[in-house]
Amino acid sequence: MLPIAVDAMGGDHAPSEIVAGALRAHDEDGIPVLLVGRPGELGDTGGLEVLEASEVIAMDAEPGSSVRRMKDSSLVRAAEAVRDGRASAMVSAGNTGATMASALLRMGRISGVARPAIATLIPTPGGTPTVLLDSGANAECQPDWLVQFAQMGAVFARHRLGIAEPRVALLSIGEEPGKGSPFVKEAFAALEAAEVGGAGFIGNVEGRDLMTDAADVIVTDGFTGNVALKTAEGALKALLTALLTAMAGRPEAIEAADVLAPELDGLYREFHPDTYGGAMLLGVKGVCIISHGSTNALAMRNAIGVAAEMVRGDVVGHLAEAVST
Amino acid sequence: MLPIAVDAMGGDHAPSEIVAGALRAHDEDGIPVLLVGRPGELGDTGGLEVLEASEVIAMDAEPGSSVRRMKDSSLVRAAEAVRDGRASAMVSAGNTGATMASALLRMGRISGVARPAIATLIPTPGGTPTVLLDSGANAECQPDWLVQFAQMGAVFARHRLGIAEPRVALLSIGEEPGKGSPFVKEAFAALEAAEVGGAGFIGNVEGRDLMTDAADVIVTDGFTGNVALKTAEGALKALLTALLTAMAGRPEAIEAADVLAPELDGLYREFHPDTYGGAMLLGVKGVCIISHGSTNALAMRNAIGVAAEMVRGDVVGHLAEAVST
Repeated sequence: MLPIAVDAMGGDHAPSEIVAGALRAHDEDGIPVLLVGRPGELGDTGGLEVLEASEVIAMDAEPGSSVRRMKDSSLVRAAEAVRDGRASAMVSAGNTGATMASALLRMGRISGVARPAIATLIPTPGGTPTVLLDSGANAECQPDWLVQFAQMGAVFARHRLGIAEPRVALLSIGEEPGKGSPFVKEAFAALEAAEVGGAGFIGNVEGRDLMTDAADVIVTDGFTGNVALKTAEGALKALLTALLTAMAGRPEAIEAADVLAPELDGLYREFHPDTYGGAMLLGVKGVCIISHGSTNALAMRNAIGVAAEMVRGDVVGHLAEAVST
Repeated sequence: MLPIAVDAMGGDHAPSEIVAGALRAHDEDGIPVLLVGRPGELGDTGGLEVLEASEVIAMDAEPGSSVRRMKDSSLVRAAEAVRDGRASAMVSAGNTGATMASALLRMGRISGVARPAIATLIPTPGGTPTVLLDSGANAECQPDWLVQFAQMGAVFARHRLGIAEPRVALLSIGEEPGKGSPFVKEAFAALEAAEVGGAGFIGNVEGRDLMTDAADVIVTDGFTGNVALKTAEGALKALLTALLTAMAGRPEAIEAADVLAPELDGLYREFHPDTYGGAMLLGVKGVCIISHGSTNALAMRNAIGVAAEMVRGDVVGHLAEAVST
């Protein structure tokens, strides 16, 4: 396998945690890695190959203009490495918009794809995570784009989660077909008329179904998807913080919380975004994994593992097939 | 004070829990109550006044046609009681859409209000709840309606939560002014140009800010607001369920969970929708409290208490003033 191009400069804890995660992916999982960034700032790279890039797109920079202007940035060079056949995939925990723009502008779209979409995994306690897309690539969508999101989401659920026949649903504010905005009603009609793959389109679901087993893939526009994703993250964080605060009060409570440490650690892992190793930009000609800005070494190792899995399963080939039908 | 009209037939646990809650509001809080429903089905009403209504709009009935057709339903009669000066407010845990339609058609809109909106309280651990509106009344909005939502939300936050100078924010997918869909960008410009009251418009917030102290009032269209509200509810439920499941495993964990019962009960109450006694439909000529379908006696007592507080504070008068400026 060609190496996975890792943007060593992107993320709140770059480059140290990114390099550490890349080393673990290489040493412990046997995955070839190509670090992209400023060689002098990477520290000990343990012999990993480095592709030099002199510029860094900041986390809060304007994506489009940054990518156009900073041609020697780690993000742009990582995307070019995939385009030029020097790497098999790219992974970044940096500026999400700039990651998308780099992948889109350098790799290009899969033929027939109207718009790439970000697919994120939402934890479902006791079950398989739910694939949510678009979780932020397109703030405004046309209703028929959601048909392609459904087709691509079904392929992703099959390869990423091993669900043979994924059930695809549309995010709305009521389960009945007539519920929702005019946009959602049009998308509903388009999804009903289309071949989405897997177990097919099962209708509307609501926000409360995201973290349940109601559907395997949930499609929506990128604005609603991003609000839902961040709302879920915020709610989990608020409750976990409140839980830890409450448990740090009475001495008896502190003691009991100590006993419960294994259970609490398990929950923390199950619900933490890092566990899933990042989202995937579906619809570009190459594997592009977008990790959380807070990515640490373990999360980066997971993200590289996911990238390798997607390359080995030829997800991009299967996505191309799904949207062409 | 005129009595609070309570839809005795609405909700998953109607009429028994609704009547029990009404009795507690009357007996323990001294609030006059007018029960609306089928006298023969209400059980012991402890001497509370009853307004007879022979029909019941089912929880899953189509709202508009039900309200137009079922003129002797408990919901329509409750709204008429407010219109006719027989009650000072209405409260229902029944069909949300039909509650809105009854209030809108029978009470009418406050002069100048384009569209009423549902304001919901979102728990913020360790702080004052956040007011979210519109959380579901209008699946599609015009950008300038959000200015009125902001004005009404600020009045509501002041009266319901005692925040003297509420900070109003717009829900988007990035904090910068340029972030979001074309609809959100237009709404941003309209909010910036308007006088929204309180501490004024403070800009965009994201989904992850709903349960933090980032803003006191967050405005959005009714589709996004409803998705966000239900996503937060679903995330909290998923995590609480996973927590309880994890704590019911090892014998030591069960014992520790027992010790933590007071803390866990506190958290459960803090995050449970029932604690806040329901949402309020802002913009109609009367107080209309919309309670969760799962409302039990305690939640109904709280909802009636909120209704009484809103009547005493003349919230409807203040809303009319806020939108006319």
